[in-house]
Amino acid sequence: MKAALMPRYKMLIEYDGTNYCGWQSQPDEPTIQGAIEKAFERFTGNNISVQGGGRTDAGVHALGQVAHVDLDHPCDPFVIQQAINHYLKKDSISILSTQAVEDSFHARFSATYRTYRYIIINRYAPLALEENRAWLVRGTPLNIDLMREGAKALLGTHDFSAFRAAGCQAASPIKTLDVLDIASKGDRLTIFVKARSFLHHQVRNMVGTLKLVGMGKITPDHVTSILLSQDRTKAGPTAPAGGLYFLSIGYD
Amino acid sequence: MKAALMPRYKMLIEYDGTNYCGWQSQPDEPTIQGAIEKAFERFTGNNISVQGGGRTDAGVHALGQVAHVDLDHPCDPFVIQQAINHYLKKDSISILSTQAVEDSFHARFSATYRTYRYIIINRYAPLALEENRAWLVRGTPLNIDLMREGAKALLGTHDFSAFRAAGCQAASPIKTLDVLDIASKGDRLTIFVKARSFLHHQVRNMVGTLKLVGMGKITPDHVTSILLSQDRTKAGPTAPAGGLYFLSIGYD
Repeated sequence: MKAALMPRYKMLIEYDGTNYCGWQSQPDEPTIQGAIEKAFERFTGNNISVQGGGRTDAGVHALGQVAHVDLDHPCDPFVIQQAINHYLKKDSISILSTQAVEDSFHARFSATYRTYRYIIINRYAPLALEENRAWLVRGTPLNIDLMREGAKALLGTHDFSAFRAAGCQAASPIKTLDVLDIASKGDRLTIFVKARSFLHHQVRNMVGTLKLVGMGKITPDHVTSILLSQDRTKAGPTAPAGGLYFLSIGYD
Repeated sequence: MKAALMPRYKMLIEYDGTNYCGWQSQPDEPTIQGAIEKAFERFTGNNISVQGGGRTDAGVHALGQVAHVDLDHPCDPFVIQQAINHYLKKDSISILSTQAVEDSFHARFSATYRTYRYIIINRYAPLALEENRAWLVRGTPLNIDLMREGAKALLGTHDFSAFRAAGCQAASPIKTLDVLDIASKGDRLTIFVKARSFLHHQVRNMVGTLKLVGMGKITPDHVTSILLSQDRTKAGPTAPAGGLYFLSIGYD
């Protein structure tokens, strides 16, 4: 029962994922979780396990990742935030806020929904300001109406095996996609998705497929066939990591 | 009369200014103009002078800088764009478009207006995704209404000496500020300005002063006193370069 006696803190986290091998700690590789755990070790002198609300791949960014930690002793949440940000000074990771939570709270298992956005820039010229922060889709202008039509097939509860990475560890390929909106402004497309949870690479594989729809390479109807095939080889390629932003995690 | 016989091309340019010592060429320092001139030299084999529509300081970004070049021989504008972007591959500079123009066109002297935006992020936590791309203003929330009130004093035609950098080379300190809008969304403030031309550091000095108004350190009325003083030491500090974006140049 030791864990129940340790004060738990929830953190909201922003990061630029460009120079990290993703969220999850790995020996000898820079990771977001690893950097935050190291900061906690410097702050507390102990090994502290940081539990993230969702894993992100190498190069994926976050505006609102959530994680929790258990500390040996109660500590002012603002002091935790200040200290961890201090030790993260050389990292492109920022603790946006910290708060004490019940020990029943779990960053991953208490989550009721997650939201992501994906940014496509549809132009010929290379990206200067948004390199590694958007997917540059050159050539033909994407047809947003077709993409929205194709997106409809993905909404609701489905077996998303066709959009699932080979290494995905989820128990089931069945997920419920609550929202998939596509907004466009100038040469910029922003795709917003919301679901309780996603399969590994699901968002990037859906985006890669909708991009083919937007280019006119496949019809919107074909998205349904891909979904029904439950076959990863039928869907489009995985969209690049740099365009993906983990926006938020919802809790009851 | 040689210049009149050379075909002239206008370019629209985007750059991340973080790693450059500003627009203007300097010996032994990385500059935007220097990088583009070097790319033209590799493309044409000749020394080509790139004339910018406006100078930007070290760390200032551009979404729509304009420049022109004179080439020895006519060339397909799209080929120029492709070639220069190829030679700029390792730079965070992108030629967005290229077009042939009359030799009466001059990127700087033909300009009828220029627009900039300045981004402030008003929160406690350090910037992860927008480091060098916004000004992090910590502490008290900025009062936007007061800032808008203070901004009114700057609109119109004035002697802007109080907002002018010591090294400014403009012939006159009298400028006409056509627009100064402040938009706010969450913790982000976007200040948009438009004028035929600006003094050196004028935008950043106006922003630095309005930030003091937003913090309640000076009243909106005090902005008028600062302007009338024509004394640089009366205005606020120069806002950091990374928050400033050169948006566009207008031509008749």
